[in-house]
Amino acid sequence: MDAIVVGAGIAGLTCAHALAQAGKEVLVLEARSRVGGRIYSHMLAPGVVIDLGAQWLGPTQERAYRLAQTVGAALFPTYTEGESLVDFGGQQKRYTGIVPNLGLWNLLDFGRGVSLLDKMAQQVPLEAPWRAPNAEAWDSMTFATWIQQTLRTRVGRWGMRLFAEAVFAAEPGDFSLLHALFYLHSGGGFERLTATRGGAQQDRFVHGAQALAEGLAQRLGAERLKLNSPVRAIRQERDRVRVYCQPHPDAPTSVYEAKVAIVAIPPALAARIEYDPPLPPARDQLTQRLPQGSVIKCFAVYDRPFWREQGLNGFVTSDVEPVHLVFDNSPPDGSVGILLGFIEGRSARQLSGVDPERRREVVLQVLARYFGEKARQPEHYLDHDWSAEVWTRGCYGAHFPPGAWSQYGHALRAPVGRILWAGTETATRWMGYIDGAIESGERAAQEAIEILSVHPDHN
Amino acid sequence: MDAIVVGAGIAGLTCAHALAQAGKEVLVLEARSRVGGRIYSHMLAPGVVIDLGAQWLGPTQERAYRLAQTVGAALFPTYTEGESLVDFGGQQKRYTGIVPNLGLWNLLDFGRGVSLLDKMAQQVPLEAPWRAPNAEAWDSMTFATWIQQTLRTRVGRWGMRLFAEAVFAAEPGDFSLLHALFYLHSGGGFERLTATRGGAQQDRFVHGAQALAEGLAQRLGAERLKLNSPVRAIRQERDRVRVYCQPHPDAPTSVYEAKVAIVAIPPALAARIEYDPPLPPARDQLTQRLPQGSVIKCFAVYDRPFWREQGLNGFVTSDVEPVHLVFDNSPPDGSVGILLGFIEGRSARQLSGVDPERRREVVLQVLARYFGEKARQPEHYLDHDWSAEVWTRGCYGAHFPPGAWSQYGHALRAPVGRILWAGTETATRWMGYIDGAIESGERAAQEAIEILSVHPDHN
Repeated sequence: MDAIVVGAGIAGLTCAHALAQAGKEVLVLEARSRVGGRIYSHMLAPGVVIDLGAQWLGPTQERAYRLAQTVGAALFPTYTEGESLVDFGGQQKRYTGIVPNLGLWNLLDFGRGVSLLDKMAQQVPLEAPWRAPNAEAWDSMTFATWIQQTLRTRVGRWGMRLFAEAVFAAEPGDFSLLHALFYLHSGGGFERLTATRGGAQQDRFVHGAQALAEGLAQRLGAERLKLNSPVRAIRQERDRVRVYCQPHPDAPTSVYEAKVAIVAIPPALAARIEYDPPLPPARDQLTQRLPQGSVIKCFAVYDRPFWREQGLNGFVTSDVEPVHLVFDNSPPDGSVGILLGFIEGRSARQLSGVDPERRREVVLQVLARYFGEKARQPEHYLDHDWSAEVWTRGCYGAHFPPGAWSQYGHALRAPVGRILWAGTETATRWMGYIDGAIESGERAAQEAIEILSVHPDHN
Repeated sequence: MDAIVVGAGIAGLTCAHALAQAGKEVLVLEARSRVGGRIYSHMLAPGVVIDLGAQWLGPTQERAYRLAQTVGAALFPTYTEGESLVDFGGQQKRYTGIVPNLGLWNLLDFGRGVSLLDKMAQQVPLEAPWRAPNAEAWDSMTFATWIQQTLRTRVGRWGMRLFAEAVFAAEPGDFSLLHALFYLHSGGGFERLTATRGGAQQDRFVHGAQALAEGLAQRLGAERLKLNSPVRAIRQERDRVRVYCQPHPDAPTSVYEAKVAIVAIPPALAARIEYDPPLPPARDQLTQRLPQGSVIKCFAVYDRPFWREQGLNGFVTSDVEPVHLVFDNSPPDGSVGILLGFIEGRSARQLSGVDPERRREVVLQVLARYFGEKARQPEHYLDHDWSAEVWTRGCYGAHFPPGAWSQYGHALRAPVGRILWAGTETATRWMGYIDGAIESGERAAQEAIEILSVHPDHN
């Protein structure tokens, strides 16, 4: 065996596929009984697929669009006809376009903030954010502090908090300003990250995003993929790695050998593998510092997208707890109506432990506030708490608290002997997105090929 | 078996001893081949013991003094006769007392900062820091931001940074203001935490701090302690826990059963155990968010404490990289002279990976700057990088980055079924210290006894 890949998310599958294409012998070990990682499509009824995980593509995510094309995954635009809703300070407003009219002074304040962010973001080198001119200062403060210091209006501050929750599934106090800036640069700026049309929420998958993972897995071949194989330990010897899998503590251990291992899972989970010899301090302490975000995706399914009849497109931003963000997530033909509400950051942490029935009630109550009484009576309701998923433990991705980028960033991708690191957290462009996962898989495959080509007879 | 304790640090041993005293059957499983955890005494020569880990006790640490007395561990005061040194901005000054005279304006600035901190700290409830009146604001900003906003002088800011490094082994940007305040309250205030005489660095152990751990282990009895037994997994069943140990991936697994398990290791390491059923999201995400600090303890051993002849007590604070803090760490009789230099926070992270020879050179160069050329030629030099220790992965303890206390603090001690949590990170008084470890072990033992007393026949 040339390479073992840990994790059959998009990063791992991309990496394995690239290695197989290059003629290398490769095996992917996946903890779950399915591929896809943070992509997870659920078939609600024939023709009605719900993406419990990642679900969107947008402009400049060329790698992701190319993959969609390669595996024949059809796309369609997120529904944006009609008016959006904003529900702020106890008042609802309808609006068209990107920004609701919440007062000139508020808009100027928010717009100024956005433009400052975008300008600073461009100074952050994607390969090495810690080399930004103000890296130390930007990494010593939280994004919340920057908001506090820069934005003057309640609306402007709320807008920035919404950005933090929607994009990072975290609160502005959870990550550093430097991380916010890196991420903005990585995804192409504020509007690119937050917009539906023209932005990262532009296109959806007709049959679910999992088609990407399944298409890759199929091309890879069933013999190169082992499901139900959680990796517990990786030992490096002079000329090889030994990878230990055990589904649960009472099960027998399977051991696989290869010349390199690519760990393609979130850093917080990579920390839970035992490494022998132990990882260097910088790498280990890095993984103590990159927590996963917190999000619960909530789906209410109705007989039809009734809000469209009222001229609404289903998009809501609000300050009403616990759902600050709603999308129309109906299938392309509108044969049923689906509202997707996001519980993110603090709210997700609060509602993570509660009785699912209670969560349903709370969410439907908010949807009814936005869309009327009919919204309270869906035909189906389901939600998915990614922090409860043992093999992910939080979505969308990891965020970098103050200090992490500037003091540990150098260890993010640095190979440790025959162990390489992939996963969307290691991407330079579109970190945290499907596109970043692909970039990371391609990069790690390239690194693996380089190791395999050095003294091939000794490998 | 009634209880299994994971980790033979002071917390775990205290807990096990208390349970044994209460007539419970208990077993401690320890990953290392020694007890003591973050206490680790090294015998350099007969009568010359070097504490590579925790080494001090100070006033109000009653639990720790009581334990020292119980196990017969003799103490002696840290050497403070003579003058201290400050080396700041390229200039050295000798001084006596607690604060060097670096200019009235600077002292006023720093003093005002300290008094503000102490005042705010008293508003932080030790049992629930997230209930502090300004918890959300204090937890959304870093301690660095508070320094930036509050201190006016370079000297004042340096003093606060030194506090962060010396007390947390972290940079002011790494943790939240709320954590700084909690910690100050937990330890009894700024002076109590930072002072030698009258503070947390007041007393040392004649024969090394490990006497505490060994004394506890002896009282516990060898049959209740298994070394070389890293716990990999804990399964909970209806009426018991099963604990799985495996020294390395190729070794056989040993399984132990009991009615409760007490996990007495740092949160970041507790995260690396597999739990079945999985832990609730709040507990899991908490452990993704509590990184260990970064410190390298450096010891230079000379034929005699020659600096004392110059009227110096060996204590240095400075802004010279990489050693900002030095103590006279000679044995009580002064038969040899030992300087203890701390590399902390950012400097520890930078010097963690480098060649030990180079580290030695860098450290001795700084010591020579403080104490003259003789300091460059020690008879022995050794250092200990706690982030490289697989079963600790950083010292002194965990720090709470912004957001952790207010959003996850409630999960810090909350039992999960038959699993309880100990370790100095779970203490309310003297968190991060030996005293806090004892408090946590006593508390966890009490919780275990309560569980064991409910339906004792079903337990």
